Amino acid sequence: MGTDSLATEQRSLADPEVRYPLWPPLTRGCPRTSSPDVSYPVEVDYDYARVPEDFLRTPAPGGGHSGTGLDRWAPLLPPLAAPGLGEGGTPLVRLADGVYVKDESRNPTWSHKDRLNRCTVSAALGVGAPGVVVASSGNHGASAAAYAARAGLRCVVLGSPTPPPAMRSFLMAYGAEVLPVPTADRWPLTERIAEEFGFHPVSNLTRFHTGHAFGAEGYKTVAYEIVADLGVPGAVFVPTGYGELLFGVWKGFAELRRLGLTRRVPRLFSCEPAAGGPLAAALRDGLHTTAVEVGATDAYGIECPVNSYRGLVAVTRSGGRALLPDDAAMRGAQAELAGQGLWVELSAAAGLAGLRTLPTTETVDGPVVCVATSSGFKDKGTGTGSYAEADPSWAAVRDRLLAAGMEPARR
Amino acid sequence: MGTDSLATEQRSLADPEVRYPLWPPLTRGCPRTSSPDVSYPVEVDYDYARVPEDFLRTPAPGGGHSGTGLDRWAPLLPPLAAPGLGEGGTPLVRLADGVYVKDESRNPTWSHKDRLNRCTVSAALGVGAPGVVVASSGNHGASAAAYAARAGLRCVVLGSPTPPPAMRSFLMAYGAEVLPVPTADRWPLTERIAEEFGFHPVSNLTRFHTGHAFGAEGYKTVAYEIVADLGVPGAVFVPTGYGELLFGVWKGFAELRRLGLTRRVPRLFSCEPAAGGPLAAALRDGLHTTAVEVGATDAYGIECPVNSYRGLVAVTRSGGRALLPDDAAMRGAQAELAGQGLWVELSAAAGLAGLRTLPTTETVDGPVVCVATSSGFKDKGTGTGSYAEADPSWAAVRDRLLAAGMEPARR
Repeated sequence: MGTDSLATEQRSLADPEVRYPLWPPLTRGCPRTSSPDVSYPVEVDYDYARVPEDFLRTPAPGGGHSGTGLDRWAPLLPPLAAPGLGEGGTPLVRLADGVYVKDESRNPTWSHKDRLNRCTVSAALGVGAPGVVVASSGNHGASAAAYAARAGLRCVVLGSPTPPPAMRSFLMAYGAEVLPVPTADRWPLTERIAEEFGFHPVSNLTRFHTGHAFGAEGYKTVAYEIVADLGVPGAVFVPTGYGELLFGVWKGFAELRRLGLTRRVPRLFSCEPAAGGPLAAALRDGLHTTAVEVGATDAYGIECPVNSYRGLVAVTRSGGRALLPDDAAMRGAQAELAGQGLWVELSAAAGLAGLRTLPTTETVDGPVVCVATSSGFKDKGTGTGSYAEADPSWAAVRDRLLAAGMEPARR
Repeated sequence: MGTDSLATEQRSLADPEVRYPLWPPLTRGCPRTSSPDVSYPVEVDYDYARVPEDFLRTPAPGGGHSGTGLDRWAPLLPPLAAPGLGEGGTPLVRLADGVYVKDESRNPTWSHKDRLNRCTVSAALGVGAPGVVVASSGNHGASAAAYAARAGLRCVVLGSPTPPPAMRSFLMAYGAEVLPVPTADRWPLTERIAEEFGFHPVSNLTRFHTGHAFGAEGYKTVAYEIVADLGVPGAVFVPTGYGELLFGVWKGFAELRRLGLTRRVPRLFSCEPAAGGPLAAALRDGLHTTAVEVGATDAYGIECPVNSYRGLVAVTRSGGRALLPDDAAMRGAQAELAGQGLWVELSAAAGLAGLRTLPTTETVDGPVVCVATSSGFKDKGTGTGSYAEADPSWAAVRDRLLAAGMEPARR
């Protein structure tokens, strides 16, 4: 593993002429192009001329299920030094109306974040760090903990003091040192732990989000899989927090077109909670990055006060749009998905919510894919609420089924 | 979908000469061979002569991830009338010591039960039932609810009054009518709802477990996938409650050998909680079925007072053994898996726990696979416990990391 990456260097997303060697991976964005007013991420460049022609047709090692996961796409990923857990290879589930749902709850820690952390923990191994440090209130932290454990590295998670009940157990499960601290303390502590303990930081460290140079690369595999399974869709609707997933999905499609393996790139729709929406605000105001006040929302996985330039690139270069589904729309989409057998957390329903609230003036040419990022077990309300014992007498049970609209059989 | 099944009829597991038409599927075992002292299940027979030679090499529709799931194996399954959710296709994750874990938490409702319910809900559609009814305290019920919702059928779950907190939310998620009733009331109510509302029963209705005729067939796909990915292993360790999974896995391997696609069948090890263990007791006492007192165990997914003849068939015909890991062994295996990045519920760790407690006199020739049935989100303790805010001062954080055995970097 990790031997056949075609990664060559890092480049600024603000200016492709600003280049850095591949190692060490930049964890604070692009220092040369960023300023106090805007933070620019870097991305990874590859030797595209050497990508095999059958890139999209190559099956996964071991017939598709060998547990090595992203290795199928190793040529266009950073070196995968960390062992895999069978991340990726998630199904496209077709809803009754023909919309496809890319069910990312089928990853090793049941969210899309595993694609990112396979890459970031590989980076930590690559630089010889004894551990990773991550500021996260949920999926990112647990996923980092799982991949660190698998790779034999330590992990510190700077988490939220008030995670949902099941999420708390999840964060603790993989042996990470979990420190619930106030939000304002998380980023300075990440810096300090990175500096004083030599731990590799796998979450953001800049004013506007830039994140880890290698992380978003892992999300490109979502696009590769969609094309391998379905061809190029007309549009992809992506739950959007800091836009790493959005950017990765866009870049994956853009690479396939560049390689001549496909002819076009789908329109990318960012789906942020209406209570916030820094990417929508940046696009509206003609800025690269901006900050907003975030109001009340239960979509805690994607409530962000600042955007990343990455998301702006994905939306503008694909001819997409920034959508702002509110909590009611997300709840509606969550219920719609549950009614089709898919239980997702509220943030994960933002993609379908965006589609369902799309103005009728928008046209999409081709199949539509909504990314559902994570399972309902991570939801805010999961593990709360009441559950009263039912009267087991037949009369009571019968009445309850009748009240639920069920009908006795005709005989 | 559902057009290319080679299923022909149902047969008694007690006597293969006792046959029934394929429809309707039997939901109360084999009436002709069962008696008050022993309940015998039926299984499905197929026109094996017509199985395509490339059965194991045929990729899944749509390149492996199209969301149709078990359809890849449709010739050797009952007709799959119910739409899929991309069940199956789960990864084999290789642990540090070379043992493989078949991670069934990667299914649509994050347990192996989805393979069963694709088949049982297909049966419900096949008989024209308006809904399904299931007695279950967990994974089975939620999975049935998801597949029923996907198929447009109603679902009644007769559940436990005291499920783990996150499990309660899970059971409620798919719009099923969930009735928490005392254990003793569940089976009579299942019968009555089946009779008076015409709902198709997808859980057991006999004194000793027989279950649904089509259900265990779905589990054969675990064996097909293992062989497609790895070849025939030396042994498979299976968390065992009523033994449907155990039997299905054995039957899948046995079919491949019968078809000449493989040369042998691995040894099947049943892994029941030491607090119960009716299959181990039946084997010890030379009985086909028996009942035991079940003591205290947190492995609530597999604590069963009676066994099924199915499990006995799997263990004896494969030259396997009945193992009885206790809760401490299961906790040890659960911790070992978490340390490799896999968080499973306690019951799901029974397979690895069985392997780890195997007497050294047992030899296994070839790779070992442990089936991990379900995610840690379903565990009894998930969503409980405390989580105190940490002191965010650097001195306190530093002390905590040092206490956890982390070391400052040398500079």
